[in-house]
Amino acid sequence: MATSPPSEDGSKATNWFTRRLSSKTSKASRSSSPIRLTTVTNPNFVSFSDIIRPRRPTEHQSRVPAPTMDESLVDIAVNASSDVSSLADKSRGTIDFFHTPPTTMPTVRGSHYEDWSTIDWLSDQARDRLRHQIITQQKKESAWKRFLALHDALSGWFCVLLIAVNIGIIAAIVDIGAIWLANIKTGICLPAFYLSREQCCWTASNQTYDKYQHVLCDNWYTWANLIRIDNGTTTEYIVDYIAYVFFGLIFATLCAILVKTFAPYACGSGVPEVKTILSGFIIRGYLGVWTLLIKSLGMVLGTSANLLLGKEGPFVHSSCCCGNIFARLFPKYGQNEAKKREILSAAAAAGVSVAFGAPIGGVLFSLEEVSYYFPLKTLWRSFFCAMIASLIVKILSPFENQHLGLFYVGNRYRWFYFEMVPFFLLGVLGGLFGALFIKLNLAWCRIRKKTRLGRYPVLEVILVALVTLLVSYPNPFTRMSMSDLIRRLISSCETEDESLLCNYQRNTTSAYEKNESAKPLYGVWLSVGLLCSALVTQTSLFILTFGIKVPCGLFIPSMTLGAITGRIVGILFETLVYYQPNFFLFAAECSTAGEQCVVPGFYAVIGACAFLGGVTRMTVSLVVIMVELTGGLSYSVPLMCAALVSKFVGDALVGQGIYDAHIQLNNYPYLDVKAEFVDQTTAVTVLETKQDKNELIMLPRDSLTVGELINIIHTYKYNGYPVVSSREEASIIGFVLRRDLQLVLEQRAVINVQSSLNTQISFSRITHQSNSIHIYRLLNRSPATITLDTPTTTIIDMCRKLGAQTILVTNEKGHLAGILTKKDIIAYNLNEQYGQENNHVPSQDAAAATRLEILKQILSRRSLYDPAFGDSWSDSFRKRNLFDPAYSDWSNSFKRSNQQAQQ
Amino acid sequence: MATSPPSEDGSKATNWFTRRLSSKTSKASRSSSPIRLTTVTNPNFVSFSDIIRPRRPTEHQSRVPAPTMDESLVDIAVNASSDVSSLADKSRGTIDFFHTPPTTMPTVRGSHYEDWSTIDWLSDQARDRLRHQIITQQKKESAWKRFLALHDALSGWFCVLLIAVNIGIIAAIVDIGAIWLANIKTGICLPAFYLSREQCCWTASNQTYDKYQHVLCDNWYTWANLIRIDNGTTTEYIVDYIAYVFFGLIFATLCAILVKTFAPYACGSGVPEVKTILSGFIIRGYLGVWTLLIKSLGMVLGTSANLLLGKEGPFVHSSCCCGNIFARLFPKYGQNEAKKREILSAAAAAGVSVAFGAPIGGVLFSLEEVSYYFPLKTLWRSFFCAMIASLIVKILSPFENQHLGLFYVGNRYRWFYFEMVPFFLLGVLGGLFGALFIKLNLAWCRIRKKTRLGRYPVLEVILVALVTLLVSYPNPFTRMSMSDLIRRLISSCETEDESLLCNYQRNTTSAYEKNESAKPLYGVWLSVGLLCSALVTQTSLFILTFGIKVPCGLFIPSMTLGAITGRIVGILFETLVYYQPNFFLFAAECSTAGEQCVVPGFYAVIGACAFLGGVTRMTVSLVVIMVELTGGLSYSVPLMCAALVSKFVGDALVGQGIYDAHIQLNNYPYLDVKAEFVDQTTAVTVLETKQDKNELIMLPRDSLTVGELINIIHTYKYNGYPVVSSREEASIIGFVLRRDLQLVLEQRAVINVQSSLNTQISFSRITHQSNSIHIYRLLNRSPATITLDTPTTTIIDMCRKLGAQTILVTNEKGHLAGILTKKDIIAYNLNEQYGQENNHVPSQDAAAATRLEILKQILSRRSLYDPAFGDSWSDSFRKRNLFDPAYSDWSNSFKRSNQQAQQ
Repeated sequence: MATSPPSEDGSKATNWFTRRLSSKTSKASRSSSPIRLTTVTNPNFVSFSDIIRPRRPTEHQSRVPAPTMDESLVDIAVNASSDVSSLADKSRGTIDFFHTPPTTMPTVRGSHYEDWSTIDWLSDQARDRLRHQIITQQKKESAWKRFLALHDALSGWFCVLLIAVNIGIIAAIVDIGAIWLANIKTGICLPAFYLSREQCCWTASNQTYDKYQHVLCDNWYTWANLIRIDNGTTTEYIVDYIAYVFFGLIFATLCAILVKTFAPYACGSGVPEVKTILSGFIIRGYLGVWTLLIKSLGMVLGTSANLLLGKEGPFVHSSCCCGNIFARLFPKYGQNEAKKREILSAAAAAGVSVAFGAPIGGVLFSLEEVSYYFPLKTLWRSFFCAMIASLIVKILSPFENQHLGLFYVGNRYRWFYFEMVPFFLLGVLGGLFGALFIKLNLAWCRIRKKTRLGRYPVLEVILVALVTLLVSYPNPFTRMSMSDLIRRLISSCETEDESLLCNYQRNTTSAYEKNESAKPLYGVWLSVGLLCSALVTQTSLFILTFGIKVPCGLFIPSMTLGAITGRIVGILFETLVYYQPNFFLFAAECSTAGEQCVVPGFYAVIGACAFLGGVTRMTVSLVVIMVELTGGLSYSVPLMCAALVSKFVGDALVGQGIYDAHIQLNNYPYLDVKAEFVDQTTAVTVLETKQDKNELIMLPRDSLTVGELINIIHTYKYNGYPVVSSREEASIIGFVLRRDLQLVLEQRAVINVQSSLNTQISFSRITHQSNSIHIYRLLNRSPATITLDTPTTTIIDMCRKLGAQTILVTNEKGHLAGILTKKDIIAYNLNEQYGQENNHVPSQDAAAATRLEILKQILSRRSLYDPAFGDSWSDSFRKRNLFDPAYSDWSNSFKRSNQQAQQ
Repeated sequence: MATSPPSEDGSKATNWFTRRLSSKTSKASRSSSPIRLTTVTNPNFVSFSDIIRPRRPTEHQSRVPAPTMDESLVDIAVNASSDVSSLADKSRGTIDFFHTPPTTMPTVRGSHYEDWSTIDWLSDQARDRLRHQIITQQKKESAWKRFLALHDALSGWFCVLLIAVNIGIIAAIVDIGAIWLANIKTGICLPAFYLSREQCCWTASNQTYDKYQHVLCDNWYTWANLIRIDNGTTTEYIVDYIAYVFFGLIFATLCAILVKTFAPYACGSGVPEVKTILSGFIIRGYLGVWTLLIKSLGMVLGTSANLLLGKEGPFVHSSCCCGNIFARLFPKYGQNEAKKREILSAAAAAGVSVAFGAPIGGVLFSLEEVSYYFPLKTLWRSFFCAMIASLIVKILSPFENQHLGLFYVGNRYRWFYFEMVPFFLLGVLGGLFGALFIKLNLAWCRIRKKTRLGRYPVLEVILVALVTLLVSYPNPFTRMSMSDLIRRLISSCETEDESLLCNYQRNTTSAYEKNESAKPLYGVWLSVGLLCSALVTQTSLFILTFGIKVPCGLFIPSMTLGAITGRIVGILFETLVYYQPNFFLFAAECSTAGEQCVVPGFYAVIGACAFLGGVTRMTVSLVVIMVELTGGLSYSVPLMCAALVSKFVGDALVGQGIYDAHIQLNNYPYLDVKAEFVDQTTAVTVLETKQDKNELIMLPRDSLTVGELINIIHTYKYNGYPVVSSREEASIIGFVLRRDLQLVLEQRAVINVQSSLNTQISFSRITHQSNSIHIYRLLNRSPATITLDTPTTTIIDMCRKLGAQTILVTNEKGHLAGILTKKDIIAYNLNEQYGQENNHVPSQDAAAATRLEILKQILSRRSLYDPAFGDSWSDSFRKRNLFDPAYSDWSNSFKRSNQQAQQ
């Protein structure tokens, strides 16, 4: 080994490390600068680890644990191998890291991903198979090992059981707490302050209902009553109004402050983020303990403040937090991101299950809307998890109700074929509403992001809450909680019912006689007026509310607005049928029915389904959830009709549901698993869109030295590098992860400090050079490989169905022509979509401009929600920059484009 | 071009074509036999088509249409290209077939697959994208084109609408027909013979019920009544018995003869085959018009004969037949096998929907059990299709019933937490039953295949029918149809009910009072005895029946047996609770209930779910189907519990459901989309298991002559051949289909008869040789490629998730090392499973023996059901042999192994 005198000092050497080399220039430097390559025997360097890990800002160090030897994995690797002794074959001077059976995939892969990175499903699955194999082998050794194997096999079930019990308990607490706190706005139960209004009146003797079916009794004191103001006076109204607004504001403010202070991730619905995470993306802290606590508490406070928000999305998020927390107890899931996602899918099902008492709907929601990878085992686990969770809620719920559904009506209503016309109409209205809501909500979210409003999230919450409370009190329908309103709207008018909504001219008051169509009187029309005004105000508030910095779901608000619309349509249609009983459509069926022909309450059910469908674009899961909510199985056909129509109308107007729209708004790297792609481009186009081909870094199999490697892994901070036969003829040998190379260099430093920078590194199976570092085992010898002519759709399928993270592209000669990562493909797709939206045949320039715009957006993605939440975002942004190959490509090409634009 | 004198006569030349060449010897022959290569200018040959299509037996010719130029595809290709004029560039002497835009996939791929072959999803999807693009481009040309584009976009919906309407009508006819025909066994409605018993008695004045709740009335005459034998005498019993057996036998015989004569494929459940077809396999005629007609008719006859068979599986099959038939009307689906499968998935959902009136359950059944590739669009279409179909059945059904469910009980029953214990027990029983049934049924099917019994399918049906009818008449519970029995078993005992099953000591007879627990009297215990005997006889008959040569589903029989068991368990548990009311488990909940604590009818529901779950291993779809059938949404938790427990118990005993077991029994090439594979092998192992590597055929890109090509495509009848840079350095250039090469040679023969056998064929993008055949466009330049080190699990995922049919394997140098087809992988998997079942660590020899055994099985797969159905099976076997590469590999290796064994 030629060792030249240390002609350059340390600072220069450091400088050298950070110098950028394109693959072309690196060739030259390799042959022409042997002096440089050996300078690092300079005593300024204590060990290799100094070289390969230059000091970073401590702030960053403290957040990302320094990459250390992953001991558990080495354990596995050692256990799996029979010839452990030859870990370092000193006699030949070669070191063979991480012995594994030759047929297995390399074992040491990034077990811990960086924040904001995509996971590699293929290698995670390979790791899990290896783990499984080792456990199977060890099983025969002892009874204890057999027990451990059994525990391992059942750990998935234990895990979902724990999640189910936990989210069930949380849901029960949240439900009870929210009802109690919401009642506090209007008054207090004097004999026992901890009772809600309904519970308070159970024990009271004189239980009555007002004309909006609010329960009244002696035990329950409104705040005006408490300071001795009589019922029915204007003063009482004003005092109660003030108390209502005051308490509501306090709840909302508390909620916003808690979220801002303790868990910024607890805001919003959480479903878009959960979708992104399940698609194989890492967002650290998003599913943490603090998020769980604050989100649960925030749900109670937010709904109590009568804000236009629901608990469904937040429950899904909370449930996934539980999933993430409990997965840590089981290394099978906690240490394998791909496997963890199976648990999270099951947890998402439990979330919907507890929110609505809809276990089957929850499973389907997880399947249709949220999950990415849903093997059959996950289906069963989700099923089990949802079942247990809903059972726990049912057991813990203090309200004796044998039906799981939140809005139970049973199979009470009967529908006729001619009613499909209004149901269809409701579907259309639902689709229109959904499109309108998504458009306006997105526009408002963009305004919030761009203007100064976004910097004061707490203030925004307070303002929204103030307006909501002020507007909602005067209208008795909006004064009550949204769940109560829905329950009121979907109920039918029994003959003895004397509330405003049921002000019909009945011939009979006997409860046993069947309802017949009756003439609606003044009260009904007053209700319609109130409902119309409620519809307008609540819609506007809903648009402003979804996206404020408190936990906010959108199921219940959408359903409320749908139920209002449905009830109005139902009353109008009922009147029509009443006055025109001989119209040919109605006459045939209504005359023989012998009971009320059009039940407005049923229209409210259909309306709720249609509006929710318009907003979320769910279909099957929506219908099942609605069926489970209402307990009305015979309604499945009208519900299906409404859901499909609203989906079509909505899709025709705005191409995506609210969750996907928010994913796109926030530029999450989500590759839609459902979309069908029809473009005819191939890998060439994607590569051209992507990057400068000069920057393609390849490691030659045999002719690489330690110094060059250190140079490369410092200059090009990609996830990993392809290994090729030689630089001249770039046949692909495999792919090696940057993290693994770092580990090797560190380990090497420990074992043999004397080795110099021009020690050879060999990726060959058998090497004849002595004293070289032999890291064949680190190589992933089966990287996903495609040709330049592969259609883009196939590439997308490889990412979303096989779970490939990095794909190597070969040219006609079989040589490496480029690398595509999942993020490249997502960016390309966004680009395509964006281009197509604006211009169906975009010119080359226009396409380039769009591309630039998208790159800008992606670069500015640190504003995940908005800049108001402080430095943690930009911090994660910086971290992301370090390791993500796609990211640095983007930023480079972005910089270059900018430079070109300026020239 | 050197043209040697025709030294060999025609017969020798033919001989030469059929001679087998391994790739090694072919190299030699290529260089040493220029004479042979040119002999075909011999005037004995009229055209190339004579050469490339030697005369086959006419019988075969008539069945497989001769491969002709696929005109529609050429149309597409020509339309897509802008430079149509240069189809044959005569000036340069090169012919460039099938101009397509350079960025697209090759357009001409096998649009029609051979019988028994696997489809290539990737190329079918590429073809569909191309079609879509062309339509989008043409849309701007005229209003008519725009209309056509709209029609194309909506054709999927039209297609499923047609299917839904059709299967709805068929289902209504089958339902009505089956009820009428079943009643004919017992008697006739004298005033109007076309009425069923129930309808007949509607109009009668003196409607009464016997103690098994059979309706009785004056209009309805039993056969004994008709010949003036009085009610209640022994003679009447005997006459009715004989009539019952006689009519039943006639129906069964007719059914078997129809199936045997007109549509052998109409036998069995059809679900295993539909699963196989949906997984990307071609079985010609399986979904044809005749199958549809005979299957529908067979359902009516089979169920009327009181055989132990249901209509659910046959409805799925019939519905898929409708799907296949109507898909032909829409070229988008009819001409694209991959797209057609989307329609078939939707049709399968409609099948379950009409069988049970369970639209949501149908969609889930299609998703969970049947479908392979289920994109979101298919989910919506399935949903729509199932909805319309169930609506049609409901509208056409003469029985006024507003509930869709077949076994409606509503939310009448209430269950208590302590009842989870018996529900759990029922789950265990269901699992045990399922395992027992699968084991014994498979054993019986194997016996049928091996012994002479299988040669007389009609006789077998008659024997089974005779035994069934003889056994079932004496027991009143089995005498009625299975649907009636289930309805009877799941109903509760109302206070006024005086049937045998409801013989309780009641304190009250008022219908308005709530049922309380009561003492069971003699009648109940008699019923239990009868049910027990029914359980034994029906179980044995069910095992013998499933697999006979009539359309036979297993949902209703399984549910019947489950309901019987459930009712028995329910009655026992009810008695226990009645006599031990103070046992701590019961006391707490029952005392406060104020109504009957244990309802045996509810146990029948749970039992039906558990038994069906044990047999089919469905979970979510099963629960949803049961909920929809019974209309009891509040039962979802007990149903879930029973389904999961029975699945686990069943899985622990027999690893697969009945459908998968039958798939394996018949050796269908089905690659389970749900199974998780954990083995650690790589492509090397699969390749080694597969074939002799000498047989790897590659086409060199430039140095191939027409003669060699003809030789290759005649000697090696594979699906297609990889094209490599040269024989020495086998870098992969692409993959070309045998069918396309055949077309080229034929076309070439048409255009230029004078070209000789040593005309060069070039797969290069640009060729400089004049007078060569230039077929670059035919090349699939992006074949699925993996390395030798790729894990088997990844290969499996490429087949089942990406839909790859042929996968090229490269070695470390990037050169072609082997080819794997989907069938290779299926065979390998079977091998693995089979090996693991017998021996956990099979020795090398044992593994080889197992392999041989499996190869034998696969070879003998012509016995699809059994040899009894004549020559059509062996014919399809022969056809399969022609084009299927995997198949001929198997037979070769099988022959070799045999030879080695003999030596």
